[in-house]
Amino acid sequence: MVQTPKNIAIIGSGLVGSLLAIYLRKIGHKVTVFDRRPDIRTIKFSGRSINLAMSNRGWRSLNAVGIGEKIKDIAIPLDKRAMHVNDKPVYFQKYGKEGEAIWSISRGILNKRMIDLAEEAGTVFRFDEKVWDVNLPEAKIYTGETEKGKWTEYQFDIIFGCDGAFSRVRHKMQRRSRFDYSQDFIDVGYKELTIPANEDGTHKLDKNSFHIWPRGEFMLIAMPNIDGSFTCTLFLPFEGKVSFESLTTVDAAKAFFKEYFPNVRKEIENLTKDFFQNPTSAMVTMKCYPWTYWNKVALVGDSAHAIVPFYGQGMNAGFEDIFILNKLMKKYGDDWDAIFSEYQKERKPNADAIAELSYRNFVEMSRKTADPKFLLQKKIEKHFAALHPEKWIPVYSRVTFSDRPYAEALAIGDMQEAIMKQVMQIPNIEEKWDSKEVEEMILELL
Amino acid sequence: MVQTPKNIAIIGSGLVGSLLAIYLRKIGHKVTVFDRRPDIRTIKFSGRSINLAMSNRGWRSLNAVGIGEKIKDIAIPLDKRAMHVNDKPVYFQKYGKEGEAIWSISRGILNKRMIDLAEEAGTVFRFDEKVWDVNLPEAKIYTGETEKGKWTEYQFDIIFGCDGAFSRVRHKMQRRSRFDYSQDFIDVGYKELTIPANEDGTHKLDKNSFHIWPRGEFMLIAMPNIDGSFTCTLFLPFEGKVSFESLTTVDAAKAFFKEYFPNVRKEIENLTKDFFQNPTSAMVTMKCYPWTYWNKVALVGDSAHAIVPFYGQGMNAGFEDIFILNKLMKKYGDDWDAIFSEYQKERKPNADAIAELSYRNFVEMSRKTADPKFLLQKKIEKHFAALHPEKWIPVYSRVTFSDRPYAEALAIGDMQEAIMKQVMQIPNIEEKWDSKEVEEMILELL
Repeated sequence: MVQTPKNIAIIGSGLVGSLLAIYLRKIGHKVTVFDRRPDIRTIKFSGRSINLAMSNRGWRSLNAVGIGEKIKDIAIPLDKRAMHVNDKPVYFQKYGKEGEAIWSISRGILNKRMIDLAEEAGTVFRFDEKVWDVNLPEAKIYTGETEKGKWTEYQFDIIFGCDGAFSRVRHKMQRRSRFDYSQDFIDVGYKELTIPANEDGTHKLDKNSFHIWPRGEFMLIAMPNIDGSFTCTLFLPFEGKVSFESLTTVDAAKAFFKEYFPNVRKEIENLTKDFFQNPTSAMVTMKCYPWTYWNKVALVGDSAHAIVPFYGQGMNAGFEDIFILNKLMKKYGDDWDAIFSEYQKERKPNADAIAELSYRNFVEMSRKTADPKFLLQKKIEKHFAALHPEKWIPVYSRVTFSDRPYAEALAIGDMQEAIMKQVMQIPNIEEKWDSKEVEEMILELL
Repeated sequence: MVQTPKNIAIIGSGLVGSLLAIYLRKIGHKVTVFDRRPDIRTIKFSGRSINLAMSNRGWRSLNAVGIGEKIKDIAIPLDKRAMHVNDKPVYFQKYGKEGEAIWSISRGILNKRMIDLAEEAGTVFRFDEKVWDVNLPEAKIYTGETEKGKWTEYQFDIIFGCDGAFSRVRHKMQRRSRFDYSQDFIDVGYKELTIPANEDGTHKLDKNSFHIWPRGEFMLIAMPNIDGSFTCTLFLPFEGKVSFESLTTVDAAKAFFKEYFPNVRKEIENLTKDFFQNPTSAMVTMKCYPWTYWNKVALVGDSAHAIVPFYGQGMNAGFEDIFILNKLMKKYGDDWDAIFSEYQKERKPNADAIAELSYRNFVEMSRKTADPKFLLQKKIEKHFAALHPEKWIPVYSRVTFSDRPYAEALAIGDMQEAIMKQVMQIPNIEEKWDSKEVEEMILELL
C-alpha cells in the first residue's frame, strides 16, 4: 500500500536514525533528524566504538533500501575467529560455511557515510539541537540550549526515538503508568585500545579474522580497520583481583599486558598509553514495553532494546527493526496504529531473545571457556553438525547468517542444549564423544 | 555509638518519611521534611489506599522509637481471613497462633498521626514544596513552583529519599552509569470501594476479619475502619472478558457485583457509585541498586523497593528499613559510609525476597485458588503443621509474625515447596493425604 507523506521527526542521527531516514525518504515522507551532538562529519569522532560486526540481518536491511554496496567498501569480511591462547600457536575457527562472514566496520566511518546517504536522499539534519521534552499524544518536541532555558516547539505527525540506550523519548514514555522498563549493568567494563598498522599500511595480525584472547574472567578482542589498524577492546571486571580498579599504575598495566597477552608484547607501550587515555565504559541490557505510543511515537534500535555486545548483534537488531517496520508500512499503508502495534508485537520477543543470547554469550565467554566439560560439549556439537549439517545448525549461525527470528534461534538453541545435557550424562562420554552411539542418541533425541 | 548531629533532609512526608524523621530527631539530628503535596492534615485525604495491614515488622519499628501505643488505638486487629465463596457460608481461617493478628489501619489516618508525632518531635515540615533536582555528591536539593521556573537551593549533610515508587531522588540516581533498575507492572489494576457502617456505627461484616471474595481472575477484599465502614479493594484485570475495560456502563457494573458478590448485594448501589467515581490504579514492582550514594544520599521504603500489595508488607518492609538503619547508626556512629554501605547490602536481598513473595501471592491468588491440586497441597501442609508446629512454620507466618529476614522466609518456603512437590507425586495422594505415610515422608525430607 502507498503511504500519504507525513512530516516525521527522528531523534538521533546514529546508525539506526540515519538508516530509518533513508527508508522514510524513499517512501516520500518529509524527514527531520535531530541530534544533540554536533555533526560527526565535522569533528574528530569520539563516540562509542566496539568495532561493529555487520552480519546477515544488517546487510539485508541495507540492501532492501539499495545502499548495501555503498557500505561494503568500508567493511572487511571476517570468516573466522583467531584464538590466541598462551603457549599455543594461534588457531582459527571458521564462522560458518564457505562464503559466510561477518564484516568489520568502524562505527564512526559507517555513521558518517550513513548521514551522507540520508542527506543525499533529502533528509534535513538539525545537529547540535537538544530535545528536552516530547509531547507524546500530540507528537510535539521541544528543543533548546539548556533544559531550563527557552525551548522551541516543533509539531510533527510522527516521532521516532532512535536516540539510543539512554533515550529521552523512552524516558518520557517511562514516566507513564504501565510502562515496563529495566536496565541491568554487568560487572564487566570495556576500554578501547589500538594496534596501529605496519609502516607499509598492512595489518599486523591476520586481516580477515576476529581476534580473541580469552582469559576466563577477562578478554581482549581485535577487529581490523581499513587503514591497517586494529581496534581492540579489553573487557575486564570493574572490581576484583584483575580489574580496572586494580590496574592503576603504568607498571601494573604493562605487567598485565605482558603476562596475559605476550604475543602482542611489541604493542605494550601503545596499549598502555591507550589504557590510561581512553575512558572505561559500562555495558547494559535495557528492556522496555510498549515501544510505541498510539500512532504517534515509536522507539527503534537501542532506545527500545539495548543489549550487551557479546553477540555482535546490537546494530543488526536495530537495522532489522527498520526492515520489519518497512514491511509493515507496505502492508498497512496509512494505518499507523496497525503498523506500530504489529511492529512492537513482532519485534519485542525477538529483541528479548537477542538480549538473552547476548547475555549468555557474556557468561559463556567469561566463565565457561575454561571448563573442560563445556569444551567437550562444544566439540561433540561440532562433530555432529559436520556429520549432519542440515539437522544441527548452531545457534551462532542462526543468529548471524540467517533471517529467521531471533526468538526461534533461542528456542532451538535451548532444545539443542537440552539434548546435549542428556548426551553429557553418558558414562565415559570423554572417551566415546565421537562414537556412533553418541551420534545415534542425538539423532533419536532430535 | 553516639552520632554528631547532622542537618538532614527527608524527601517525602509519607509513612516512611515521617517515621524516619521521628527516629532521626530522637538521636538529635536536625530534620527537614519536604513534600510536593499539601499537608494532608489540612485537606480531604485522597492518597492511595489499599488499607494497610500492620504486622510484626511494622510494630517492632514503631515500638523501638516508642510510638507503638499511639498507633494501636487507630488500628483494628484481624486474627483471621473470612472467605466468601458463593453458595457456601462464610468460612474463617486463623492467621496464626493464638494472639497473632495483623492490624487494619487507614493509610490517611495513620499518616496524619505520624506527621503529628514527627512534628512534636521537632521535625520541620515544608509542604507544597516540590523538589525538582538533587545534587547527589554535594547533598543539595532544588525546589520551586515548576520544573522550568526559578529554583531555591538547599544545602544539607545527608538526604533521604522517602518519596515513594516514583521517587525523584532515585530518578536522579538512575541516570548514572551502573545503576540497575526495573519497573514491572502487572496486568491487574485495583479500585477502592466502600461499604459504609450500619446506622448505629457498627460494622456490617465481621470486624476482626480480613474479608476475601476470591474469584480466580479477580478478587474483592475488605478491611475494617474504626468508623464502622470497610474499605474494599477490587482487583481486576485491565483488559479481557471480565475487566475494567469491559465494565463501562452502570448496568454492566451492577450485573457484575450481583453475579459475583451476591452476599453484599445490599451494597450494590454504593459499590457501583464508587466504581465510577474512583480512579483505577496500576500496581508495579520496582527494584534498583545501589540504594545509596556515598555517605550523602539513601533511598528508604518504596523509593528503593516498591512491591505489589498482595502480601500486605509494603509499609512493613519500609518501616523495617528504618529499624535496620537505626541499628547501623548505633553500630557505626559517624561513619555514614559504613552505615549506608551495610544498609543496602543487608536490605537489598530482603527487599528482593518480599517483592518475589508478594508477586507469587498475586499469581497464587489469581490463578491457583481454583486448582484442586494446589488446594490439596495446602491442606496437607496445614495438617502437617498442626502435627509438628515447630517443624513446619508456614511462609506466611515467617513473613507476617516474625522478625527473621524476608530472604530466609523465601528460602525456607522454597525448600518446603520442593518437599511438597515430592509429596504430591505419591500415587493416590488424594486418598491418603492425612496418612502416617505422608507425615513420615515429610519428616524424612525435612
